[in-house]
Amino acid sequence: EHHHHIAVLAGDGIGPEVMAQALKVLDAVSGKFGFTVSRKEAFVGGAGIDHCGKALPEETIRACEEADAVLFGSVGGPKWEHLPANEQPERGALLPLRKHFGLYANLRPGVCLPALTHASPIKNELIEGGFDILCVRELTGGLYFGQPRFREREGDDEVVVDTMRYHKSEMVRIAKVAFEAARGRRKRVTSVDKANVLTNSLLWRETMIEVSKDYPDVELLHMYVDNAAMQLVRNPRQFDVLVTENLFGDILSDEMAMICGSLGMLPSASLCQGAQDNGLFFGLYEPSGGSAPDIAGKGIANPIAQILSLSMLLRYSLGEKTAADAIDSAVRRVIDQGCRTGDLATGAPGEIRVNTAEMGDAIIAAL
Amino acid sequence: EHHHHIAVLAGDGIGPEVMAQALKVLDAVSGKFGFTVSRKEAFVGGAGIDHCGKALPEETIRACEEADAVLFGSVGGPKWEHLPANEQPERGALLPLRKHFGLYANLRPGVCLPALTHASPIKNELIEGGFDILCVRELTGGLYFGQPRFREREGDDEVVVDTMRYHKSEMVRIAKVAFEAARGRRKRVTSVDKANVLTNSLLWRETMIEVSKDYPDVELLHMYVDNAAMQLVRNPRQFDVLVTENLFGDILSDEMAMICGSLGMLPSASLCQGAQDNGLFFGLYEPSGGSAPDIAGKGIANPIAQILSLSMLLRYSLGEKTAADAIDSAVRRVIDQGCRTGDLATGAPGEIRVNTAEMGDAIIAAL
Ligand SMILES: CC(C)[C@H](C(=O)O)[C@@H](O)C(=O)O
Ligand SMILES: CC(C)[C@H](C(=O)O)[C@@H](O)C(=O)O
Repeated sequence: EHHHHIAVLAGDGIGPEVMAQALKVLDAVSGKFGFTVSRKEAFVGGAGIDHCGKALPEETIRACEEADAVLFGSVGGPKWEHLPANEQPERGALLPLRKHFGLYANLRPGVCLPALTHASPIKNELIEGGFDILCVRELTGGLYFGQPRFREREGDDEVVVDTMRYHKSEMVRIAKVAFEAARGRRKRVTSVDKANVLTNSLLWRETMIEVSKDYPDVELLHMYVDNAAMQLVRNPRQFDVLVTENLFGDILSDEMAMICGSLGMLPSASLCQGAQDNGLFFGLYEPSGGSAPDIAGKGIANPIAQILSLSMLLRYSLGEKTAADAIDSAVRRVIDQGCRTGDLATGAPGEIRVNTAEMGDAIIAAL
Repeated sequence: EHHHHIAVLAGDGIGPEVMAQALKVLDAVSGKFGFTVSRKEAFVGGAGIDHCGKALPEETIRACEEADAVLFGSVGGPKWEHLPANEQPERGALLPLRKHFGLYANLRPGVCLPALTHASPIKNELIEGGFDILCVRELTGGLYFGQPRFREREGDDEVVVDTMRYHKSEMVRIAKVAFEAARGRRKRVTSVDKANVLTNSLLWRETMIEVSKDYPDVELLHMYVDNAAMQLVRNPRQFDVLVTENLFGDILSDEMAMICGSLGMLPSASLCQGAQDNGLFFGLYEPSGGSAPDIAGKGIANPIAQILSLSMLLRYSLGEKTAADAIDSAVRRVIDQGCRTGDLATGAPGEIRVNTAEMGDAIIAAL
């Protein structure tokens, strides 16, 4: 009891640097809160290609299978961009991992802290006091994996097909994730669809309404995806939990992340129901931002997204809620104290410029 | 020669009010530049439902068929929201019109004038000097019309399918529209796709590259749709012409419009090749914003989007380029003079508050 085991896939670019800070924080909280976590490191992405010939080597899959959860860094970089799309680090590692483990629920918090609204591209008067959205994206259905998908000649022309296919059961389970999450928050779910055009969206909307009956305490709103893309810019504070299908979620969660203004702060979790019936998920946890090859190796990247990914891992996969809460508060505290990596700094008085390792240290000190 | 004929579909909400201003401007320019335009008015949207039992009555289709172009107002409102999705004013009028006339090219200028950057939700330092994007959206292919689309039982579950289907020839013709447009602008086309996931996008990307060979003077860039949703917020000034498929275009063009900050200023054109080989298109021209039922009937709506829609109609369908240029300059002039409808007003010194009719008059005076 209270012993856990995780796989650590640091990947490329800034991945290893920010991962080192997350692991330091893991040591600190496990000591403080009395649990142990053994770790197995494995190659992924460009590192996988370089060391084992592919973005997702077999032994990496095995390491993940044997773990309670996967802490993932980031993958990709110019070195591997000449490869065909489905062998590239991102595509070649993330999609197979999602599919292999059935990671159907992608949770992306879009938090803009009150102290960091200046970093958002949105005018301050529209986001005063910051905002806090949780985007719940379905991650294993729709156009990403739907069959048939093909291209073929048709006389002088060529035709190409992808298929947006969903089962109602897939919609039900992601809806439950969204409503459960809303219960622990501000109790509002905005379901995003294109019900004026897509057959998928008609079933989606019906299903959201059906599932909402089990959550009478949670408000359900519907919004077309084109309108959601506008409303995120116009008034992000109107959202609590956003729930949507795979491709819409891909687009809207990135738009939301950009509106937060500090990609280096945003974690994400990709979950599936765990083997035991204990409310815990198996999951892969990673920063929302990319591998940032331009600043890799300089020790200046913001490690907070990776550290908050660890906090999500502790919460959703290991059930170490107290440790997760402690990390979240420590992060807020160092931000309130004025600690700023380069991506957050404005030169305002009171700011303390820190590098990657110093930010990690500050968070550990604040624990 | 120099006699034209258009259909006028004012629709619902603010549609009739702003249309009245556009028709005043049409009178003024046709007198000034020596051409005549006869008009046939017809019901559409909620007005179509109320007067003829459907959003797109047969006689309205006939009126459009007999015209060189269609000037469209806006449709929809709470009165008709209880109807099934495909009978509602927007969906029930716009999709059938696009399909019936094969209006495959949707052109949406996303212009933020230097004098109006304050109205954008984006921080001023990111959009200083304004910006000028042209979004070219494919409008008759992809998930909107692709077959098969169905839902059916599957054991205890239900499965639902929509199909993203494109012909290469459809991609070629929209690419040409984008590259031609770029030639008259800053000579940069950004093609948006999801080539790391969709088979459609692989053919799309290949086709854009192929067509670009005929436009060696135009630069072609590729961007994933999730990244485009971020870049529009982060730095809209990087874009000249954006070209993308139907659903991505639906989402991104609305996001872009919101970033401009003044929906009441943005026209759009939905085009298909005309019958004659004279470089002119048949087309439907409409404001990008909606019918704004909340301010309908008050005479305060901004008529500029409707007036610029007229200008696009004169340019693309009637070949009256001089008149179109004159309208565009007149609009810029009244904005520079400080004329502001309620949606644009900030209370800054030098602003002249005007209502719908006064804005129309000011533009005519500036012609
Ligand atoms: C790399 C790509 C396939 C992936 C996706 O589209 O899901 C990425 O954009 C993401 O959002 O995690
Ligand atoms: C009304 C709807 C079907 C339409 C679309 O999605 O194309 C609208 O959103 C638009 O962009 O013109």
